[in-house]
Amino acid sequence: MEVLIMQPAFGEISVSDFFYRHRELAGFSNPSRATYMVIREAVENSLDACEEAGILPNIKVSLSYTGDELCHLRVEDNGPGVPPSEVPFAFGKFLYGSKFGVRQSRGVFGLGITMALLYSQVTSGRPARIIVSNGGDIFEVKLRIDIEKNMPLVEGKKRLANMEEWHGSIVELYFKGDYPRAEKRIMEYFKLTSIASPHAEIAFTDPAGDQHLFRRSVEKAPKQPVETLPHPHGVDAEMLRRLLKRSEGKSLLSFMVKSFQRVGYATARKFLESAGFSPHQPTSTLTNDDVLELLDAMRKYSFPPPDARCLSPIGEDALRDAIMRIFEPEFVAVCERPPSVYLGHPFIVEVAVAYGCKGIEGEIVLYRFANRVPLIYDAHSDVSMNVLRRFNWGSYLHVRPQATAVFTHICSTRIPFKTAGKECIADPPEVEREIELALKECCRRLKTHLTGRVSVEERGRRFNAYKKYLPKIAQFASELAGRKNAPNVSLILERILEGKN
Amino acid sequence: MEVLIMQPAFGEISVSDFFYRHRELAGFSNPSRATYMVIREAVENSLDACEEAGILPNIKVSLSYTGDELCHLRVEDNGPGVPPSEVPFAFGKFLYGSKFGVRQSRGVFGLGITMALLYSQVTSGRPARIIVSNGGDIFEVKLRIDIEKNMPLVEGKKRLANMEEWHGSIVELYFKGDYPRAEKRIMEYFKLTSIASPHAEIAFTDPAGDQHLFRRSVEKAPKQPVETLPHPHGVDAEMLRRLLKRSEGKSLLSFMVKSFQRVGYATARKFLESAGFSPHQPTSTLTNDDVLELLDAMRKYSFPPPDARCLSPIGEDALRDAIMRIFEPEFVAVCERPPSVYLGHPFIVEVAVAYGCKGIEGEIVLYRFANRVPLIYDAHSDVSMNVLRRFNWGSYLHVRPQATAVFTHICSTRIPFKTAGKECIADPPEVEREIELALKECCRRLKTHLTGRVSVEERGRRFNAYKKYLPKIAQFASELAGRKNAPNVSLILERILEGKN
Repeated sequence: MEVLIMQPAFGEISVSDFFYRHRELAGFSNPSRATYMVIREAVENSLDACEEAGILPNIKVSLSYTGDELCHLRVEDNGPGVPPSEVPFAFGKFLYGSKFGVRQSRGVFGLGITMALLYSQVTSGRPARIIVSNGGDIFEVKLRIDIEKNMPLVEGKKRLANMEEWHGSIVELYFKGDYPRAEKRIMEYFKLTSIASPHAEIAFTDPAGDQHLFRRSVEKAPKQPVETLPHPHGVDAEMLRRLLKRSEGKSLLSFMVKSFQRVGYATARKFLESAGFSPHQPTSTLTNDDVLELLDAMRKYSFPPPDARCLSPIGEDALRDAIMRIFEPEFVAVCERPPSVYLGHPFIVEVAVAYGCKGIEGEIVLYRFANRVPLIYDAHSDVSMNVLRRFNWGSYLHVRPQATAVFTHICSTRIPFKTAGKECIADPPEVEREIELALKECCRRLKTHLTGRVSVEERGRRFNAYKKYLPKIAQFASELAGRKNAPNVSLILERILEGKN
Repeated sequence: MEVLIMQPAFGEISVSDFFYRHRELAGFSNPSRATYMVIREAVENSLDACEEAGILPNIKVSLSYTGDELCHLRVEDNGPGVPPSEVPFAFGKFLYGSKFGVRQSRGVFGLGITMALLYSQVTSGRPARIIVSNGGDIFEVKLRIDIEKNMPLVEGKKRLANMEEWHGSIVELYFKGDYPRAEKRIMEYFKLTSIASPHAEIAFTDPAGDQHLFRRSVEKAPKQPVETLPHPHGVDAEMLRRLLKRSEGKSLLSFMVKSFQRVGYATARKFLESAGFSPHQPTSTLTNDDVLELLDAMRKYSFPPPDARCLSPIGEDALRDAIMRIFEPEFVAVCERPPSVYLGHPFIVEVAVAYGCKGIEGEIVLYRFANRVPLIYDAHSDVSMNVLRRFNWGSYLHVRPQATAVFTHICSTRIPFKTAGKECIADPPEVEREIELALKECCRRLKTHLTGRVSVEERGRRFNAYKKYLPKIAQFASELAGRKNAPNVSLILERILEGKN
């Protein structure tokens, strides 16, 4: 073949090289935001590790400066400890991890902590230090990433005796940071983490050496969300193909029952017959067009709604308590919506409206959470902000509330994040609708509270009027009637005070 | 080792599986936005291919419905045609491409068109059809992606005779779309593309069969940006390590000169001596700490600023003409800033303010571009929006302008996008500052125009007064002086009209 026009050279890069070139995508856009991201990724890794093992998290974070811009971070948890043989890959390889199942978890991308290591390496040139133990010997690993190959490079290993049966993980990183500019966001992150994970205790030592302790307010680890099968409405052509490949040799009936949640034999049989498939047809005989037809039929068939046991909302009581503790508002209205579905993924929305908060300037402040993680940056394009922007407070409260904090929490097996930095949620209409409904419910509750307050004030006003004039009226009436002693009005006044009048 | 606490299972996923699970990250968050994204990725692929080969782009786009929600897209260009042997990888493998150099290009992630194929495959279940030719035989490939492995799967190949010496690429995809909801954005995308790439001709046939033609207004392809070496201020520890690895056996002096732009032998020698390195030291003898010291010294040394020849701004004239053609404003002020640098990456900012535009409702509308690509979504968190939000129009124009469009274009070898969907630019302070300076300059020019307009009006007012009273004054004065004929005032009036008075 004759080449008539010059064509460019082609090549391939690794996924780590991709994120090295485009670290803004993962939220590491400048030293200030990177400081927040590094802390956040390490803390969330620790929280997830503890919760998966059913351990109440104790997390110690300390940040210090070792140079002009060079920060040193140390994060220690009391989790189960990553197995030493897994440390290089779990920390030093992108898209390697333990969080790829259908289940709610903080980390979902398999790149958070590895991204922190990468940022550390390219800005400080130094390896990360990881220390782990499951209660037996302690293992220390010095780790770099071969970014061009997306492979971990172990620079040193040590095995130490564990005299105190310590278990957990310690991550130590050097990186180019800017704490002063990130301080406000980082403190907000810890405060909100303490609301979304009230069972965790976090101690943060800042570069000035001051310790900030975020105490545990719930003494029980949340029910660990269970991993589930996908829902028939939650699969696409690709997923269906994969599931079929794993069920080779089975009948369609058994495939449906074993591959999906909420599909029993009766449902599966009814569905397959309505879709024109024989329940006994082996999956291996399906043609490409059959697969698409099956998918189309699954979309249109009305299966029972997805199982929400794989979700772990904060809960109305825990959320209210945590908000009362941290924001000390006059009143909190909390609403947890029943489970709902977008694209086959179950999700639960929780909204709280805290009225008359201490330390809130201006009218309304929005705090967002997703799978118990506070979202600090990029609020402008978030689904909750969209709902809030067009929400008509007047029609619920007659006025726009003052010093009010709105909290939104979305938990799902699949949060539709807009960015790999996990700061901003996209807006499937189903999610938008649930947030709006929850917000309305909170407003109704807040209104009842405010109306109640008005009626107490009104009653007080009336009581004062009666108290002033009733004795005079009684005396005047007595005189008119020629009686010597006016009747005792205190009984009437008491009844008015009790609101029985 | 005794396992004391249960630990989770670990595993790995491919980069294609990652983007399959998190397609929102690449902008494919719902059928409406995905419709826009699929079109955009295909069009930009075509524009880049044509420009790299120095060809004036002719691009034909047609979108139709083949079912309720199933769209069919066909995009044809007159580019050099991807080599047939490269088609499977260039289209069907993530992070494989021809755009990884230090140079300005529309596509930078190596995932745009592959993401479009992936979205097509998972929502339609059908393979993509790619047709290419460089002017010789025509090759047709039916392509799927093995998403679990990030590998292309060729489903069929054909070789056809090319009677008309056609060259270019054709991409055909089926996908779940929502054109009605995306229509406004898609039309805006084409309109703005026609402003940023006035040398391209694009014909778009919409699902109703209507053809929209965006004509070429510049008959010359833009100067192709050259690929350059990195600037010493643009490298980090990782990049420096890679460059050193590629220069094994060389002296530090030769390494500096051959690896970086703007570093000649004199500069290199002066720099190395000031940093305490011998110019003759072989690169292979550098220890880890040496590398960090060298990096630190490079950051602090004042090298000449980066070469901006690798950038291709639209240009003030082309930008003004295109805006006049499309928005028909009363006046356009355009400002191209001189090249600047953030983190060692050169960039150029162009801003235009078009006053009194047709078809603009409200006060000020922002249109954003990056490397000649219009950015349609997620304006809220963009750096240009941040600048605009706090910009004090009053101090430049006395009033906020009406029916005004602000255009910002940033071109760089590395645009700091916040999302892989390439819609929103992060805000390094250097970029923010340049946008603000350009906007101020445009405002000054607009002010001069508006002041000029005021003075024309003022002159007219004065002329009318003179025209009315001067003849009467002349007549009155003549009568007073006892003259019979009043002098001719038309000469004076003419001079006033010409503004000489």
